[in-house]
Amino acid sequence: MTKMTKIGLRLKLSFVILFGLAAAAQVKTSRETKGQTLSIHLSWAVGVMSATFLTKGISGAHLNPAVSLCFCILGRLQWGYLVPYFLSQVVGAYVGAALVYALYYDAIMEFSEGVLTVYGPNETASIFATYPSEYLSLAGSFLDQVVGTGTLLLCILSLTEKRNTPAPPDLIAPIVAGIVLGIIMSMSANCGAALNPARDLGPRLLTLTAGWGTEVFTCYNYWFWVPIVAPITGALAGTSLYLFFIEWQLPDEPMEKLPTISTVIKNSSAILEKEVVLKSTHF
Amino acid sequence: MTKMTKIGLRLKLSFVILFGLAAAAQVKTSRETKGQTLSIHLSWAVGVMSATFLTKGISGAHLNPAVSLCFCILGRLQWGYLVPYFLSQVVGAYVGAALVYALYYDAIMEFSEGVLTVYGPNETASIFATYPSEYLSLAGSFLDQVVGTGTLLLCILSLTEKRNTPAPPDLIAPIVAGIVLGIIMSMSANCGAALNPARDLGPRLLTLTAGWGTEVFTCYNYWFWVPIVAPITGALAGTSLYLFFIEWQLPDEPMEKLPTISTVIKNSSAILEKEVVLKSTHF
Amino acid sequence: MTKMTKIGLRLKLSFVILFGLAAAAQVKTSRETKGQTLSIHLSWAVGVMSATFLTKGISGAHLNPAVSLCFCILGRLQWGYLVPYFLSQVVGAYVGAALVYALYYDAIMEFSEGVLTVYGPNETASIFATYPSEYLSLAGSFLDQVVGTGTLLLCILSLTEKRNTPAPPDLIAPIVAGIVLGIIMSMSANCGAALNPARDLGPRLLTLTAGWGTEVFTCYNYWFWVPIVAPITGALAGTSLYLFFIEWQLPDEPMEKLPTISTVIKNSSAILEKEVVLKSTHF
Amino acid sequence: MTKMTKIGLRLKLSFVILFGLAAAAQVKTSRETKGQTLSIHLSWAVGVMSATFLTKGISGAHLNPAVSLCFCILGRLQWGYLVPYFLSQVVGAYVGAALVYALYYDAIMEFSEGVLTVYGPNETASIFATYPSEYLSLAGSFLDQVVGTGTLLLCILSLTEKRNTPAPPDLIAPIVAGIVLGIIMSMSANCGAALNPARDLGPRLLTLTAGWGTEVFTCYNYWFWVPIVAPITGALAGTSLYLFFIEWQLPDEPMEKLPTISTVIKNSSAILEKEVVLKSTHF
Repeated sequence: MTKMTKIGLRLKLSFVILFGLAAAAQVKTSRETKGQTLSIHLSWAVGVMSATFLTKGISGAHLNPAVSLCFCILGRLQWGYLVPYFLSQVVGAYVGAALVYALYYDAIMEFSEGVLTVYGPNETASIFATYPSEYLSLAGSFLDQVVGTGTLLLCILSLTEKRNTPAPPDLIAPIVAGIVLGIIMSMSANCGAALNPARDLGPRLLTLTAGWGTEVFTCYNYWFWVPIVAPITGALAGTSLYLFFIEWQLPDEPMEKLPTISTVIKNSSAILEKEVVLKSTHF
Repeated sequence: MTKMTKIGLRLKLSFVILFGLAAAAQVKTSRETKGQTLSIHLSWAVGVMSATFLTKGISGAHLNPAVSLCFCILGRLQWGYLVPYFLSQVVGAYVGAALVYALYYDAIMEFSEGVLTVYGPNETASIFATYPSEYLSLAGSFLDQVVGTGTLLLCILSLTEKRNTPAPPDLIAPIVAGIVLGIIMSMSANCGAALNPARDLGPRLLTLTAGWGTEVFTCYNYWFWVPIVAPITGALAGTSLYLFFIEWQLPDEPMEKLPTISTVIKNSSAILEKEVVLKSTHF
Repeated sequence: MTKMTKIGLRLKLSFVILFGLAAAAQVKTSRETKGQTLSIHLSWAVGVMSATFLTKGISGAHLNPAVSLCFCILGRLQWGYLVPYFLSQVVGAYVGAALVYALYYDAIMEFSEGVLTVYGPNETASIFATYPSEYLSLAGSFLDQVVGTGTLLLCILSLTEKRNTPAPPDLIAPIVAGIVLGIIMSMSANCGAALNPARDLGPRLLTLTAGWGTEVFTCYNYWFWVPIVAPITGALAGTSLYLFFIEWQLPDEPMEKLPTISTVIKNSSAILEKEVVLKSTHF
Repeated sequence: MTKMTKIGLRLKLSFVILFGLAAAAQVKTSRETKGQTLSIHLSWAVGVMSATFLTKGISGAHLNPAVSLCFCILGRLQWGYLVPYFLSQVVGAYVGAALVYALYYDAIMEFSEGVLTVYGPNETASIFATYPSEYLSLAGSFLDQVVGTGTLLLCILSLTEKRNTPAPPDLIAPIVAGIVLGIIMSMSANCGAALNPARDLGPRLLTLTAGWGTEVFTCYNYWFWVPIVAPITGALAGTSLYLFFIEWQLPDEPMEKLPTISTVIKNSSAILEKEVVLKSTHF
């Protein structure tokens, strides 16, 4: 696969965005008659699971520039990919947001009475990008995104570490989805849990170009930079904590002990036993 | 198994319909005191999971004529089965809807005060078939079903691709259920997320014959054709996108590297290690 | 293990009852401030999962006399166990209900203002046993329990059939829990989805002896026999449908094809490949 | 790894606390506009799952002093670790609570209008520690925590017993999360389901030092000792019940039967068959 193909495939973030933003549009424009906050949170989780199953075989499941940066630092991704990945992730998020805009165009016009705005009871900008609560200080919103993204990185990095208790490789997608669900359920009240610079910037650019105007960038004293910079800071913090508290504390690779042939047979036997037990049990 | 048996078994769509429509009836007729929108969405997911476990060994899990069509195109199903499958899927959906009608007959009569209708606050037709929101344009509803069904196909096709990161074969049923849940939570506000021509046509025919009258077909300017034609269009679009962006980008089959005997032993050893680790860990 | 031990262990139904009834008590006595209908439905599912993991190795997971009866007919359980099982299942359900009564005694007294009754806005009998909705005919409630229990049996019997696509043996507990969740979410509006004669009779006996009086048996024209007889009828119907449509349609046991040694190696190799792929992918 | 490292790592309870308390803060300070009771319950479950995956390889997943005590009694943990573990678990819980306090400082000040208190409609102490309902007697709250924690232990101990039907080792984290979810959904109405002395004491100390004052310990007649003592009592009761009813009833270790080489081959063949079946089925 060429480098261009790999980069082009970053567009898959569109897919996550489609689930998450469409659920937000469904709940908001139906005034919670066709879903509730929990539906939105669950939809982000399904989006992450689906996008991971869909594209991991092709190009890893890089959906988040903050995570990509950490993988560069950890030596799992070449630095040369970082900027092109970021750009394509933003484009992917823009495309996903545009699709949601098209899908819910009629509903948004009905809900907002045709006035696309960032403020007030009929605002619809928050379907797409994240905005801070009225009460929130700048430091508060920065900390919020640092902690949320740091938590995400700590969890993700531990899932594939063989010397720890790794998750089953073919079930990492739903488990990561569960972790994302937990973070959104517990850390989205302050400023929407972007956790991902591209997830926020792409849809914000869509609203800029689709009729919400420059307010989406200027509002709350040019707040838009927080969900770009803070998640990166948080991802770096989470990775550092992971290295210091987990990775460097782990014992060496457990693969080195050599198994005897009797071990292999015993092991197969254990599996067989389970089958036999199964046949003889009832529900 | 004869061809007739295989076709007859398409009736299993009844099973999915039973879960989905019964949950819709439970939530609507109890005026949300015995469930909420999310219960309905979750019930569709359980229905898909259960029907897949129930019948996959017999005849695959063809529950959706739009999906069956794509499998014909991909060469995974013979074309001769397509029309008989479609007919039996519609009959299956009709039977499932009839069962829900019988189960909730008393509740529907109480809720609707005996007037079976498509419009107004006491309408009950939407328990069975899908109808568009008042605000929705024809183009909007067509696009809605194309995107929803396209997303479904993209996700499903990626789950069994061995060169990608496939889902565990015996857990495909719950994972597909999760994907269906995500699509319904995020893309059912506009016109109910039929995603399946038979799921919509069968129950609509039931309401036609059970007392709701011809309005179920004529309402909203004969809108009933949209959830038949648009999901097929969407399934074809999703399959094309899958082939172009995923399938044709994947590396060749990874089976060809030959394992050495030491590899086999090492591999068994890895499993054994996990067992040992388990014994020595605490909660 | 002696026969008496096996029978005594039927008490584990207490465990399922504890989760399900306690959640009902939590939601009702807190007037939905500490949970909602969906919490109750989910708690029944967790109860089924936990009880299955807890006791399957000891004595199968017989939690339901209607299911036990079907296993006798299918030859998977000796007939001599049936009546003792039923009695111990009822005792188990009584004990579980008594525990919930003790746990929520203060809350029930507060909520009901000390009047334990079956009718009215402050009724608390429905925390324990099931009661029909006002609108429901006798035939309607009988059909409801037949269809619900029949669906349960159809689903459960298909999960362990090796010639079908069986669920992973060690994940049957959560999958059955998911199916129970689906049935309760979609078929509990009419009369509470007992699905199990012991689950209903045990807690009803508790309310009889704990102060709700004979009304719990006499109300709705001695309705209490329906959740005893109808689930048994439904279980028999579901088992018949399973045998006729699934079991007898399946191809013969797939075990007979003999593997060559190269097959064994190839197979191990496939597992190894997956590991290798895992190591080289990113998130 | 040194003893000090192992003990220091008890701090991971911070992680569970972060999810659980942050969700409680999100739901309360947003006045249920950004989540609901079920979100809080689900977040505790995700916290347990994430912390288990994160740290099990390093130092087991000891998150609960009541569970650690039972493991000492069962001989799975050295007695010398017990007190240091307890202290570090309390410190971990304090740190997690402090992080949530920082994250939601602005929101808590807005919600409470600057008055940090234990009583009244604007109380915020219950975000952090547990408090009894007004109607609850002391005996009632003690029993509540005994039953809740006993249930937790009974469930956890059965999951890894090989002679029972154990859960898949690499999926124990999400299954324990499901059990915790069930207990919180069904047994948190009376007094908040602490289930863990450290989970309650650590955050209570945080509120003491962060401005809620000594009321957090003196309120409800010095009630704070109940969620410390009762969970320990419950854990001991649950462990006793497990030993008596389950562990001592189980047949001997199934490992002793020796497999023949044909068994090994047959077993591998069974796995292979599944793969073959997979290739030939459709969705």
